[in-house]
Amino acid sequence: MAYRTSALRIDRDNALRLRILRCAQARVTEAGFGALTMQALAEDVGIATGSLYRHFQNKGELAAEVFARASQREVDAMALALKTQAPAPRRLAAGLAQFAARAWHSRRLAYALIAEPVDPEVDKQRLIFRQAYAELLVEVLDEGVSQGDFRPQHTQLSAACLVGAIAESLVGPLSPSACAARETGQPALALGSITEDLIAFCLSAVGAKELSA
Amino acid sequence: MAYRTSALRIDRDNALRLRILRCAQARVTEAGFGALTMQALAEDVGIATGSLYRHFQNKGELAAEVFARASQREVDAMALALKTQAPAPRRLAAGLAQFAARAWHSRRLAYALIAEPVDPEVDKQRLIFRQAYAELLVEVLDEGVSQGDFRPQHTQLSAACLVGAIAESLVGPLSPSACAARETGQPALALGSITEDLIAFCLSAVGAKELSA
Repeated sequence: MAYRTSALRIDRDNALRLRILRCAQARVTEAGFGALTMQALAEDVGIATGSLYRHFQNKGELAAEVFARASQREVDAMALALKTQAPAPRRLAAGLAQFAARAWHSRRLAYALIAEPVDPEVDKQRLIFRQAYAELLVEVLDEGVSQGDFRPQHTQLSAACLVGAIAESLVGPLSPSACAARETGQPALALGSITEDLIAFCLSAVGAKELSA
Repeated sequence: MAYRTSALRIDRDNALRLRILRCAQARVTEAGFGALTMQALAEDVGIATGSLYRHFQNKGELAAEVFARASQREVDAMALALKTQAPAPRRLAAGLAQFAARAWHSRRLAYALIAEPVDPEVDKQRLIFRQAYAELLVEVLDEGVSQGDFRPQHTQLSAACLVGAIAESLVGPLSPSACAARETGQPALALGSITEDLIAFCLSAVGAKELSA
């Protein structure tokens, strides 16, 4: 009986933890990490703030986990987009297009993940996930170089450069001020134009012999 | 007399503030923002921790000012390196080479500025200074495109991509773990090789007609 009781408690704890994380991500998706306060979140979940602290020591730890869960989904999506039978330049272009499209579809969350000033715990996760993206890209670059589709290069350095270029290209267009300007009808870059330019930049950078149409 | 007394006090306050900032930067240059605690800094300066808080409300505000002062020096140095009579591709290459060389010369500080996980106040400054670098680069790109030295492109987007690529290419090589490995004699990328690859990546990306030797 004691065993069953504690197993039940663990299940309940896990379910609550997951619910907290989902509510936290909903807040970040809606309005960024700035909107993620322990008090507001406790209200969303419908628990006391003290109970929240039994699951997450502080806001930094919570924000880092929200970040890691959301970023892992993006890494997985890019891994899938890159994993086709197409030649390396086309795979790279597909990965870039998909990353930009997903970011565009959920701009506030994408900005939060890529650039929003936030706790150092999240910065630490950013470094880890940028490394994960770089590893996916190295694989495509290595194949492209070996097939003669890309110029010879230090693929690890190029992959890091690509990760930086992709992230930085989206910081401006995704920023809350750019989104606000767009909503009030001011001229702004459209997704299609950003994606096209980003793909041209990246394929040129790695010396793609034939730019994919 | 009252006037003279208060003018004197302001001078003394400013001098102390400057001394605090210099000691703070020395700490960051030596061991990163992680070594910048209010208590240790007060000891370096030789004042009470309470006096430190009369000049800076908290560590975030202090770290942001250390960051901004150090970053402004880098932006100024790059502006100078870019401002020559040479054709755009050569100016771009010179700017990149100098940025990498300066970072390499003061690796711990460069890593702290570019990537160290740190207070959100510093993240905010990072976004501002990345924009400053981008503005310098746009000018070179615009000239290069108009002279036919670079391919036609959306130069603001390309400039952002370059800023991201430059920063991200150095994160790995400058990281404390890479520096520690280098010190124990493990094989690691050298500055020359990183610079060469970074220049090739960036010049290819913007479609430089003739890669500078």
